[in-house]
Amino acid sequence: MERARAVIPHGIWGHNRFPASYTPGEYPYFTERGEGAHVWDVDGNRYIDYLCAFGAMINGYANPVVDEAARAQAARGDCFAQPAAVGVELAEYLCSKILGAEWCAFSKSGSDATWTAVMIARAFTRRSDVVCVRGAFHGSHGWCNGCNPGEGRAREDAHAVHAVEWNDANDLERIFQERGDRIACVVTTPFHHPIPGRAALPSADFVRAIREVTDRHGAIHVVDDVRAGFRLDLRGSHAYFGLEPDLICFSKALANTHPLACVVGTDKVRRAAESIFTSGTFWKSAAPMAAALANLEFLPENDGLRTMMSLGQRLVDGLVRLGQRHSVPLEMTGPVTMPTMTIAGDVDQAQMRRFAVAMAEQGSLVHPSHNWFVSAAHRPADIEQTLGHADVALASLAPGGAARARP
Amino acid sequence: MERARAVIPHGIWGHNRFPASYTPGEYPYFTERGEGAHVWDVDGNRYIDYLCAFGAMINGYANPVVDEAARAQAARGDCFAQPAAVGVELAEYLCSKILGAEWCAFSKSGSDATWTAVMIARAFTRRSDVVCVRGAFHGSHGWCNGCNPGEGRAREDAHAVHAVEWNDANDLERIFQERGDRIACVVTTPFHHPIPGRAALPSADFVRAIREVTDRHGAIHVVDDVRAGFRLDLRGSHAYFGLEPDLICFSKALANTHPLACVVGTDKVRRAAESIFTSGTFWKSAAPMAAALANLEFLPENDGLRTMMSLGQRLVDGLVRLGQRHSVPLEMTGPVTMPTMTIAGDVDQAQMRRFAVAMAEQGSLVHPSHNWFVSAAHRPADIEQTLGHADVALASLAPGGAARARP
Repeated sequence: MERARAVIPHGIWGHNRFPASYTPGEYPYFTERGEGAHVWDVDGNRYIDYLCAFGAMINGYANPVVDEAARAQAARGDCFAQPAAVGVELAEYLCSKILGAEWCAFSKSGSDATWTAVMIARAFTRRSDVVCVRGAFHGSHGWCNGCNPGEGRAREDAHAVHAVEWNDANDLERIFQERGDRIACVVTTPFHHPIPGRAALPSADFVRAIREVTDRHGAIHVVDDVRAGFRLDLRGSHAYFGLEPDLICFSKALANTHPLACVVGTDKVRRAAESIFTSGTFWKSAAPMAAALANLEFLPENDGLRTMMSLGQRLVDGLVRLGQRHSVPLEMTGPVTMPTMTIAGDVDQAQMRRFAVAMAEQGSLVHPSHNWFVSAAHRPADIEQTLGHADVALASLAPGGAARARP
Repeated sequence: MERARAVIPHGIWGHNRFPASYTPGEYPYFTERGEGAHVWDVDGNRYIDYLCAFGAMINGYANPVVDEAARAQAARGDCFAQPAAVGVELAEYLCSKILGAEWCAFSKSGSDATWTAVMIARAFTRRSDVVCVRGAFHGSHGWCNGCNPGEGRAREDAHAVHAVEWNDANDLERIFQERGDRIACVVTTPFHHPIPGRAALPSADFVRAIREVTDRHGAIHVVDDVRAGFRLDLRGSHAYFGLEPDLICFSKALANTHPLACVVGTDKVRRAAESIFTSGTFWKSAAPMAAALANLEFLPENDGLRTMMSLGQRLVDGLVRLGQRHSVPLEMTGPVTMPTMTIAGDVDQAQMRRFAVAMAEQGSLVHPSHNWFVSAAHRPADIEQTLGHADVALASLAPGGAARARP
């Protein structure tokens, strides 16, 4: 870390410096290797990993089937001026599996995908405004500033972006009443996962309202399924919640840690998609596409979604029980395959940071303020071991427990 | 292509559909494999490639040294929540080689890098406006709209972006007189490579003016070396032209087709870099970083820059001679390692498209409206063969030649 700080801002660049920087010296900084659901830091410590590369790992690190598909494609060819045929196969696969998808456009990151979707919606409607949900994260481009401000983005970058409250159909109606003739699209995640904060599933009312109000005003609904994609429903998380978007963005788990993203859409917006100008040198790289095909086939073949659901349920139920036992008012929110843990009254996440550090010290990696991820490579024994770590960690948070656990 | 059109907008997504879409059926659509400076399309045709994955290939496709470094790192681990140590080594390497670099921040694409640089400049200056050069391409984010408009970006995305003319020190002075107290940065490429159009090297006057006017007004100079990086000077193209930027963006050739980008900067802007929020799931992937280290070491070990310079000169000189022989008023502009070919009076590039198609038919891939790339994997025999192809292609463009060549 000392060497890193000399040549990299903060020593670790980007949001992945959290939680390392929250708890200097008490959390692993650099990863050496990974296998299945386990990672080893550069000091040789092994962890059961619930960060899962922030969701990009779904079928296990160094998954031999996925990685061999990428290697075989890379040996033939990866990135050229013209794309490889494997992208056509992957697009056909996605159109056959993702509910509503009639075409597919690849890029490299979730941020690329959400911005591409916004551009397509703008081209379709010939309007510029975007509605998103307060506290939602849609990437690191300037337009997202409207929902999630950050240093270095000019306030004006988000001039045309308006935030509404999650699950508030009235608020959505209000913004369309105010400026419906200027709104190109509503961008939402399939469920709300703000950082920090409790996760919230969509109400049936909100689901209905989004489709109804966008249709009434000729606007587009974009679902940003970058974080949740393939952890709720293999047809897309919109299918799980009954959302009916025009455009859907995937990345993260799409190719099991290989860098890839895509926007899929309906025929309604295909010509708009063909009208925009966009570009990325590595968007057509073939190896991650071969990895994605292998990854998406591996999931159902190995009943991966059911594994994640059942292990996630076990983890969440166990943590709730342990919270009660230790009188720690913890709450588990969001789907069990990507649960969020919060503690009532823990306003600045100080308790969650202590919890995460205590977990890391024992060998489980969890995040203090971001949802966790369960993968299809976790095993029942991993969950049991992690619940054992949580027993100790929660004891140290219990009234009077801190003194016991940290002499 | 028929299958592709059913599931992908245009069948090929992004700008790489050009030149295929310019000349339907007369240009290869999909690449099967690559080796050295050669690519094979899915129909088995071999081409000498001067597209070089739009610059990402510099040491040859399927370079065994670079690809083995990536494979070895990927076998240990690629993308985790926390970065791998190889990123620290690569940052140290870049800081030791790139003129002026004192820190390094990684991301995935040239667009990521230029936007990161703009955010850092805004954080440093606490101002929002950006000055760039008319016709310059800095990626596909919304802010670039100011220099290079496109469908789907709201005009207002570029509200704070102002274009000046290349090599026009007076125009630069004018914009700073008008709103110098609001300008965060001047973003330029090391030389001007608009699409379409002739390339232009920077005048000594313009080089001096950029540094002088940004210093006088407390603004930052960002060099976007995404396209030219490592094809002019291994210390960065700014070193080649005498530019003295605060921030420099690299991608493309950095890791020889493996997806990686970075911003390097001086200590002056390090704290500003630490103050911005930005993030990307795949930005910390380790395999492309191992590839970059191997790639950047391979270049000088094999005298790659000298190879590119000497072969590029041979190509350019040969084309100029052939133009004279066939009375085609062609012009070769830009550095010889990334030459741009234009034909006087060819306003809509119709002649250049005919030239590119005639070249492809014989086995040389060149671009009708974008600069070409020479790589360190090209061989003298490739250049000679390509000049032979150009002899035939130019004959067909010569006065009365079209009838002869296309019965």
